[in-house]
Amino acid sequence: MTTRISKDTRLCMSLAARPGNFGTRFHNFLFRELGLDYLYKAFTTTDLPAAIGGVRALGIRGCAISMPFKEDVIALVDELDPSAAAVRSVNTIVNDDGVLRACNTDYLAVAQLLEAHGVPLDATVALRGSGGMAKAVAGALGDAGYRSGTVVARNEAAGRALAEAQGWSWRSGVGGLRADLIVNVTPIGMRGGPEAEDLSFEPATVEAATTVFDVVALPVETPLVKRARALGRQVISGHEVLVRQGLEQFVRYTGVRPERELVERAAAQARD
Amino acid sequence: MTTRISKDTRLCMSLAARPGNFGTRFHNFLFRELGLDYLYKAFTTTDLPAAIGGVRALGIRGCAISMPFKEDVIALVDELDPSAAAVRSVNTIVNDDGVLRACNTDYLAVAQLLEAHGVPLDATVALRGSGGMAKAVAGALGDAGYRSGTVVARNEAAGRALAEAQGWSWRSGVGGLRADLIVNVTPIGMRGGPEAEDLSFEPATVEAATTVFDVVALPVETPLVKRARALGRQVISGHEVLVRQGLEQFVRYTGVRPERELVERAAAQARD
Repeated sequence: MTTRISKDTRLCMSLAARPGNFGTRFHNFLFRELGLDYLYKAFTTTDLPAAIGGVRALGIRGCAISMPFKEDVIALVDELDPSAAAVRSVNTIVNDDGVLRACNTDYLAVAQLLEAHGVPLDATVALRGSGGMAKAVAGALGDAGYRSGTVVARNEAAGRALAEAQGWSWRSGVGGLRADLIVNVTPIGMRGGPEAEDLSFEPATVEAATTVFDVVALPVETPLVKRARALGRQVISGHEVLVRQGLEQFVRYTGVRPERELVERAAAQARD
Repeated sequence: MTTRISKDTRLCMSLAARPGNFGTRFHNFLFRELGLDYLYKAFTTTDLPAAIGGVRALGIRGCAISMPFKEDVIALVDELDPSAAAVRSVNTIVNDDGVLRACNTDYLAVAQLLEAHGVPLDATVALRGSGGMAKAVAGALGDAGYRSGTVVARNEAAGRALAEAQGWSWRSGVGGLRADLIVNVTPIGMRGGPEAEDLSFEPATVEAATTVFDVVALPVETPLVKRARALGRQVISGHEVLVRQGLEQFVRYTGVRPERELVERAAAQARD
């Protein structure tokens, strides 16, 4: 069905320095299929306070927050839920009659995926990266109970801070690394980036791992994911994170949790 | 055709205390028919400065301004074009890369309609009303060159100010009024209002007039319009104002002026 826009249609949106199309396609597909009178539109801005003021003043129902706004937006909302407070990073705002509540559905998605894939809590972890998304992933791992971990990051200050927050260790490079669960949270392997063809861990590290988790979502099959699949390792993909975090946003915006089959169709048609 | 929303889709919107559906249906129909990657959505707000800040920060392409924001918004924009400056009232904002330019397409529409209907400049005018829309209509009439006019308004201060701005006279009631062009700019005859069944001028005044102009747009056939048509008088309807002012907004938002036949179809399907 096609939902006709009216004065009662509720708007959800996203804010990013470089907006993509996944959220727009994913949410609008589900709105249409479920007959919900909602609409989703991606925006960018150079004035975050005014943009968030607009979300509040216009009664925009929900707003996804992407790079580079995930930390700066904290000062502009009214409440942080535990997922956002845990990692001091926001990727979602829900507007209840002018009260802006922030959460982090990346954090929630990572926690759900580790459980769904049955990754045991005594697995050793090696996580590469130290940016905003790395904070959400490391926080989710630490809070889930993964006690033995290493953060790999060239930026020593950021890497050490991230590691110490979870009681983990830090190292600067991937050479000779061994862990049961290896997690890439850098842009290595991302389509269109300077390291699109590169492997984010050494081949021997991939071979020694039990579970390989690549947060890069585009392409779905990164060099790391391809290598892991070829070796028969368990894979958690960035696409799964993208879909799960989007689903958690959808539930918060609408109060409706779609069936798994419909979510999968929404994700498939939302891919580039 | 159906335009699929993407990150590149441009948003136009409206701000009103009580949003209607005409603008949403009118503009979205034309966007679809012309294959323009635009979207229109009506909003309300209780915080006008933050809402206009949001228009600027989110790069919203255009914003229609309705009651009660038409005067307060002046302080929030960057430039007033002559149509808005003439009547100190704004009904449209166009956002060019963060520069907000305001105009008044009601003023433009009224001027166009008087010319299109060939109402001679030496016609005497009687205009009933003294609100924001009355200012736009009286300003358009005065600037077009109608020198002999009467403003009818119970509010003496507002009525006198409106009349004096055009070099016209003021009176408080409609009793015994005679003029060639009679114009209703009050809510009398408006569907759902307390005076929906009432005639805004005396029957003898309607009979004595050459042209009857009712700014009320809903219903299209107000009691005044019905009476004027029954008497064979020339009629200018509020629906014509609504369509013309909407068309002028559309042209400013998109740079495209649709054919008359398409505009008529857009207007027909936009009616309640």
